[in-house]
Order: sequence, then structure tokens, then C-alpha cells
Amino acid sequence: MPRGPIAILAGAGQLPIQLLSHLERTGQEVRVLAFRGFAESELQRRAHATVDLLDLKTIMGTLDGWQPQAVSLVGAVRRPGFSALLSAYSLLRNMHEVKEVISRGDDQVLRGAVMLLEERGHKVVGAHELAPGLVASDTLTGARRPEAEDREAIGIGLDLLASLSAFDIGQGAIVAHRHVLAIEGPEGTDRMMRRVRKMRQSWLGLRRREEGGVLIKAAKRGQDLRVDMPTIGPKTVVEAARAGLSGIAIGAGSTFVLEQDETLKIADRLGLFLTAVDLPWMEKPIA
Amino acid sequence: MPRGPIAILAGAGQLPIQLLSHLERTGQEVRVLAFRGFAESELQRRAHATVDLLDLKTIMGTLDGWQPQAVSLVGAVRRPGFSALLSAYSLLRNMHEVKEVISRGDDQVLRGAVMLLEERGHKVVGAHELAPGLVASDTLTGARRPEAEDREAIGIGLDLLASLSAFDIGQGAIVAHRHVLAIEGPEGTDRMMRRVRKMRQSWLGLRRREEGGVLIKAAKRGQDLRVDMPTIGPKTVVEAARAGLSGIAIGAGSTFVLEQDETLKIADRLGLFLTAVDLPWMEKPIA
Repeated sequence: MPRGPIAILAGAGQLPIQLLSHLERTGQEVRVLAFRGFAESELQRRAHATVDLLDLKTIMGTLDGWQPQAVSLVGAVRRPGFSALLSAYSLLRNMHEVKEVISRGDDQVLRGAVMLLEERGHKVVGAHELAPGLVASDTLTGARRPEAEDREAIGIGLDLLASLSAFDIGQGAIVAHRHVLAIEGPEGTDRMMRRVRKMRQSWLGLRRREEGGVLIKAAKRGQDLRVDMPTIGPKTVVEAARAGLSGIAIGAGSTFVLEQDETLKIADRLGLFLTAVDLPWMEKPIA
Repeated sequence: MPRGPIAILAGAGQLPIQLLSHLERTGQEVRVLAFRGFAESELQRRAHATVDLLDLKTIMGTLDGWQPQAVSLVGAVRRPGFSALLSAYSLLRNMHEVKEVISRGDDQVLRGAVMLLEERGHKVVGAHELAPGLVASDTLTGARRPEAEDREAIGIGLDLLASLSAFDIGQGAIVAHRHVLAIEGPEGTDRMMRRVRKMRQSWLGLRRREEGGVLIKAAKRGQDLRVDMPTIGPKTVVEAARAGLSGIAIGAGSTFVLEQDETLKIADRLGLFLTAVDLPWMEKPIA
């Protein structure tokens, strides 16, 4: 039986680039379909085709031509507006059902995409399955370690994210001194941290260095890691430092760390801890 | 037994002004202690004394002089930085205990303030007890009514806020098409709505009118309404319209509505619904 290439459907950020490089290094045949307006220019140059996110006909047609052994949806895309999604999906599926699926939030939209691909006979795999080295292991740590207060903040953050699991929001939160400063919405982690930085700057007589606090990022209970796994990288660490945080805790086995060496080096240089924690609601980390 | 005046400790916003006017109209003797940097200039002119938020010695001394029959903490103050709070409170109380109390979040800080006042023999009352007319009744409504989808969003928002009750965050959330767009942190309702407006503007090919969504504002389970009751007003409605929302739902009996007539008129003019809903976790609304 002939084995086809691996197809990467690529959104924004460094993750698709790193996945592509990893697969190429291992000699794997790869085809990249880059989403216009999302994929980085480097990736668009290396891509085999570029397509609009909502042009499902072209996407499906291209995949039919490639006959991939597996398809991976990698990189960020912003959730398009409701009506744009509606008209795109309605080309392919029963209107009522489409409306049901996409009105239920990000998770459901992504599940809808996976469902469509699987109905066409494609096998959908996560980047973490194709390149486990990109994922935070449970031994990941920088030079600095979380102190007692940080560990308490991490506990509160994990409890908070667990109770938000039902609501299709909240891969991230910031907790300082047992006080929840922010919960991540569709705006993303970096904007959430900038929000906290601004709040702190506007507060009375505050010297930021005294503030501390922890960014907690973790996959939700029941989250499909194949399409929506939390990701951090050097930029995350820099924004965390700017927001006056003392460190970052991420879910072991279920978080991508871009440029892992560089990310840890920056954390060390800026004096932040970076630690991976077991998520009580996840199956054991992938080996 | 001689009855002293009612003392208002006044932070930012229109609520202290409206409370003062209400009490004056009813012939009640009132003394106002305005917090410098927070209280509106109109209120500072009408105040009997102005003081720094953290100058607890002066605050307590002034109240000792006034011998009020009741004290009301009204209007917004930003939570000061951790260390500023720490040094202020430590003038008065055991250091370890202070650290315990103020490290637990906004609710605890406010409870700490109430505790201090009560220990000094003051009776702390809420503005809603002094002026029930400022509170949303369960019959409050504008001309427009929530549609089926809006009612569904309200239900999701209430569920969400209920499950956040334990975390000392979240008097507000925005839900559109069963999708949680934002959860309010210490930045406040208006900034949360501006965040949603900006997100929506940056999303692909979006016509904002199609978007809809509901702002849900509700007191937390176990919230001390004497010191931290959700408040909306004309500005809230304008920001909600700018964010493309279709309406606002507030907790009946536990939300202040500033300039109620004006607020409803603006909601009608901008085509938003404004409705009060019973909160399952609150005691029956105050009559």
C-alpha cells in the first residue's frame, strides 16, 4: 500500500515552520497548504499551495489531489465571524447542523473542521504526535524554581482553568497573591499579559518589580490536542517579564514550547521560572 | 439616644453623588469623606473632608469625630498595589493577619475594610439599603426584549459567573452565539467591552452589526453587597453598543443602575435590550 505525504494545514506562528523543518529533517515527505493572511511569510514561501481559510472547496480539492497519509492542522487562526463561517460551512453541509456546530464556540468549530476532514477519509493527527520533541516534557524547567507563593498561584490557576473547562474559554490565566488578575479569552495570551501590564502601570504608587504573579497555561479538559494545543515561546516569556510576573507554568505533555532552548535561556536571563506541571484532568503525558 | 449622621466614604463614579443627593432630599444628615484621586470633583466640592485612600489613621479619626449612626463605602476605588496595602494596614493590625487578609483578592480587601470599621464600633451599611431606588428591580426593562438566542447567552453567562464565584473574579462576562468572548477582571466592565470591540474589529471580514452578544453582570455568590455591588449606567450602554452587543442583563435586586431613566432611554435609542434577571444564588431581591 503506497503511503502518501503528510499534509500540514498551516496557520500563523512559528509552530508550522518548526513542524515542517522537523519532518523534513526526518526525511518525511510533506505538503504544506498555507492559510493566506495567517501563515508566516517564510512558510508561505515554503508552502506548496496557499488558500483562504474559508475556501473549503479548494482545501478539500487540494487534499484530494495529495492523498496524504495524515493531515495536521497547525498554527493559529483567528475565529472568523459567525456569518462568514456560516456561509463557508454551508457549502458543504446541512445548514441547520452547521449552525448548531459553529455556534458552540472555538472548540466546536475546530471539531467541525476535524469532522469534515475525517468524513472525507483523512486521518487527522496532531503536531505533538508528529514531533513530540516540540512538546513540554514533565521535567522541563529553567534555572529558577517557583517559590511557595508561586506554587499556590499555580494551584489556584489550575483550579480556575478546570472549572472553566465546560465553557470553551480559558487556556490561560494570571494569578498574583491568590488574586486572579486575568482570564484569557479569544484575544490570546500575549494580549492578556499586556492587559495586566497596563492595569499594573495604572495602579497607585506601584513598583512593578514587587508584584510577581504567574501565567498558567493549560489545555482544557476534553480539549482535542490535535487541533488546539497551548503554545508558548520566547515572546511569551518576554511579555510575562514585562507584565511583572515571576514565572510561567504550563501543562506537561500538552503544551508546545517553541525554540525550547532559546525560551529557557530567555527565562533564565529575565529571572523568570518556567515549569511544566501535570494536569490532573489529562491523561499521562505523551512519552 | 442621639442619632448621628450617615457617613459616606466616597470613591469614584456617580453613585456616591446620587446617594448623597438622595439622602439630602430625604432630610437625612450626611457627612462625606471623599477619597483623593478617586471621588468626582463635584463630590469633592460637596464633601466634608478629603483623604488619601490608604490614610487609615485620618479616616478612622474623622469617623470617630463624626460619630455616625452608619457608614457606607460607595464608589469605585482601584485595588492598590500589594505593598502599599500592606504598609497601610500594618499601621493598624497584626502584620501576619493583614498579609493573610489582603493576599486573598478584592473581596477580602473590602471585607478587611468592613472588619476594621466594625471593630471600631461602626455599623457598615450598603448604599442599596440607604437608597433602594438606585437598585435594579426585577421588572426593569427597556423597550426591546431579549430574543431566544440572547436568553441562551444570558443562561451561559450566569452559569459561568456562578462557577467563577469561588475565585474572587468575574462580576461580568460577554457571551455571543454560545461563545464566551470575555470575562471581566480587575480592569472593569468598560475595558472588557472595549477589548471585545477591538477583537471584533480585527477579525476577518466582519460586519459588526451581525455579531450581537450579551453583557451579563451579576454579583457573585457570597459577595458582600454593602461594599461591592455591580453598577451600570448610561456609559455601560454606550460601550455595549460600540462592542456590537445586542443587550445587557443584570442581576435583579443586586445591581445599581445609575440615572435609571437616562440609561433606559439610551438603551432604547441604541436598540439594545436591558433586562434584570433573578440570580439563582442570591436571596430574593430587596423590595
